[in-house]
Amino acid sequence: MITRTMNMQSNATDKLASRILGSSPSAIPADVVHEAKRALLNITGCALGGATHPAMDIAIAALGPYAGQPTCAVLGRRERFDPLFASMLNGISSHVHDYDDTTPKNYIHNSSPVASALFAYASVNLVSGSDFLHAFILGFEVVSRIGNATYPAHYDAGWHSTGSIGVFGAAIAVGKLLGLSKTQMIHTIGMAATQSAGLREMFGSMAKSLHPGRSAQSGYMAALLAQKGFTAGLQSLEGPRGFAAVQSAAYDLDKITDGFGEEFDLRVNTYKPFPCGIVIHPTIDACSQLHVAHGLDPAQVTLVKLRVAPLVKDLCNKQDITCGLEGKFSIYHAAAIGLARGKGTLAEFTDDVASDPVLKRLREITEAVGDSRVSEDAVHVEVYLSDGRVLTKDLTGSIGNLARPLSDRQLERKLADQSTVIAPYAVDELIARCWEVDKLRDMSELIGLTVPMPL
Amino acid sequence: MITRTMNMQSNATDKLASRILGSSPSAIPADVVHEAKRALLNITGCALGGATHPAMDIAIAALGPYAGQPTCAVLGRRERFDPLFASMLNGISSHVHDYDDTTPKNYIHNSSPVASALFAYASVNLVSGSDFLHAFILGFEVVSRIGNATYPAHYDAGWHSTGSIGVFGAAIAVGKLLGLSKTQMIHTIGMAATQSAGLREMFGSMAKSLHPGRSAQSGYMAALLAQKGFTAGLQSLEGPRGFAAVQSAAYDLDKITDGFGEEFDLRVNTYKPFPCGIVIHPTIDACSQLHVAHGLDPAQVTLVKLRVAPLVKDLCNKQDITCGLEGKFSIYHAAAIGLARGKGTLAEFTDDVASDPVLKRLREITEAVGDSRVSEDAVHVEVYLSDGRVLTKDLTGSIGNLARPLSDRQLERKLADQSTVIAPYAVDELIARCWEVDKLRDMSELIGLTVPMPL
Repeated sequence: MITRTMNMQSNATDKLASRILGSSPSAIPADVVHEAKRALLNITGCALGGATHPAMDIAIAALGPYAGQPTCAVLGRRERFDPLFASMLNGISSHVHDYDDTTPKNYIHNSSPVASALFAYASVNLVSGSDFLHAFILGFEVVSRIGNATYPAHYDAGWHSTGSIGVFGAAIAVGKLLGLSKTQMIHTIGMAATQSAGLREMFGSMAKSLHPGRSAQSGYMAALLAQKGFTAGLQSLEGPRGFAAVQSAAYDLDKITDGFGEEFDLRVNTYKPFPCGIVIHPTIDACSQLHVAHGLDPAQVTLVKLRVAPLVKDLCNKQDITCGLEGKFSIYHAAAIGLARGKGTLAEFTDDVASDPVLKRLREITEAVGDSRVSEDAVHVEVYLSDGRVLTKDLTGSIGNLARPLSDRQLERKLADQSTVIAPYAVDELIARCWEVDKLRDMSELIGLTVPMPL
Repeated sequence: MITRTMNMQSNATDKLASRILGSSPSAIPADVVHEAKRALLNITGCALGGATHPAMDIAIAALGPYAGQPTCAVLGRRERFDPLFASMLNGISSHVHDYDDTTPKNYIHNSSPVASALFAYASVNLVSGSDFLHAFILGFEVVSRIGNATYPAHYDAGWHSTGSIGVFGAAIAVGKLLGLSKTQMIHTIGMAATQSAGLREMFGSMAKSLHPGRSAQSGYMAALLAQKGFTAGLQSLEGPRGFAAVQSAAYDLDKITDGFGEEFDLRVNTYKPFPCGIVIHPTIDACSQLHVAHGLDPAQVTLVKLRVAPLVKDLCNKQDITCGLEGKFSIYHAAAIGLARGKGTLAEFTDDVASDPVLKRLREITEAVGDSRVSEDAVHVEVYLSDGRVLTKDLTGSIGNLARPLSDRQLERKLADQSTVIAPYAVDELIARCWEVDKLRDMSELIGLTVPMPL
């Protein structure tokens, strides 16, 4: 029994469970279905692109010996593992390049934890594409809605919401496919809440990608436990010692269910053109444009001045990077690759680039100032050249943001660029199945294409 | 590289890793070794007592199908699983009755997460009793020290420290046995921090026992990942988005390493005589004493008034309990079982007692008042009888607390009472091996005794 009081936020968990149980695929608007396919296509590509990252090899070497029956596919890998471990691996691969999607309202990468759990579940259970996509949409929206309800306090405190909130989406998405009862769904949400974890202190290390990985696994586990009768607190979101009270200094839990089924954050989801922290995208974009427009030779550059939003400095102030992962959160590296190379692809965030002398010098001569008048999606760049010229660029709204979204074709190319682990013909077929996912009788038809063929 | 600043707390993670690596079994004082054996004996008994709890059966039914090679023993169970899942199960069983040890300085049940990981590790790796006990002591002390450094803010915020801090102890204990380098130990601490979880909102449900269970597993996993080269943030305890900053409004990180190796919280560890929240122990003790002294017939009782510390009401204010787990956190149930039965054993916290009409009536006629003049280890009881008499009892320091500790013999009886799943001769041998654990060549000699024989 849920205790209800007059507090309008007192039954958030109960209400959320009801909304999840009450939702059906036919009620999702067509434009949201299309956006969900875009998100699915993008996260599939990211998982393929990250599948051979050292973080994956290490996780498999360390934990693979303890995994269960090898029944479940892992996107982009030949090995099979039990679905719980596979869900963690999908989470690592799909986030490790920081190339996955972002909801700019709350800076959460909603797709990774949700899709990672669902891919694993659907690899070992018969799930139709329509049910899969519906569960994905529900999980995505729940993550984003809990994110909205606790943003910015939760994020500002230092939580990496992709992990700490992602776990809810994985849990309810798997729970929906399991056909849980309402009580079971409430327990699932409770066990998601009590496994909520992930610190922003991990940014720049492999452990950042562990956040959606572990959250996918924890959420999946929560649903399995609840299905068999494991109990949890009933007010895990709103209770006095629940998720919101403990992990967010301010919150409005009505945002979790208000307009549920009518308003969708998938409509404001964005896709990264660059595999790094989204707040340094304007700098890469602006500096790349300067590179192209002026045929810049990096040796000419004597000083670079950036004016960015204070949050950007707060998140990405690492000037002396020692590995590619750190470069993903360095505003200095962002300027360097834009000015020197005019692009920001996976090749600009390898470990080698950390020691590239041209980039290193550019990082060292770059100054960044936090300015509260500059929006988080903007940058002001001044580049001083040895011949006395000063190039400037003001940019608001970098490519990939809501005003300049990646097109369906650009998303397809992004997937293809990351899909070197599978055969070219499989890439085309995979893209086709992502667009027609809701017609698939069995999600294995899609997941099977992500597994590299034996040599 | 760890960045050091003038802030005296700026290198807490680095210092802790150094202390762990520098510690050796020979440096542990004899009295601490004995206290560690008492803790080990107690937690072994608790794991046996909880091994057949429904929470265990459910966890095994839900997650057992996904477990790895059945190489690892689970205390009190016949099944074998992979060591990571086994560590989780040990954590559930050893905490599910709320019968494990407590450090009253910070209300943490240090032994469960640490021993649960170590038992699993030592079941699949050759570990001497001396190394095992040393790793256990290190894990116990690290949990308690991080607890002290963040108490009371972390706990008061709503974290169940046994989970949210226990993970650090499991991680470093396993990491110590793995012989990790200092860098690997720093990464281990980082991955423990970023998996720190567990909300007090779960109290009264099975998910409470999942906290040390999942923390044992998360800590074990952190050490395995770090061993193979998975990286984490380097300042996970002290960094601006690290554990302390994010999960504790106030903290003093010097407490983690000050006096390390000289002062031991094992010396102030306490053992529960009653399987429930420790703050309701004085009430059970006082009411049991009234029952015995006056040969109380519960039908005579017309009203019960309790004065307790405000924290006690805050934690244990559930009057209308629906299951035994809720009774463990009900000050009203504590009074009822003491007055009606004069005792508080496992039998007073089964699901049946929730519907026992005598206990139900007593709970309903009990009033509890929070009074800041009453210490957390005290209670004032007034019992009004139908013949007009009023019995009163003031009690400070219930049995089991530091002033009235359980003796070694009482701990042995407590283990024996909980060990019905194994043969009586095995109980005696198990007790003997706990006392001589530091002489064992192979911890399997002890762990093997905890496994029930086939029928």
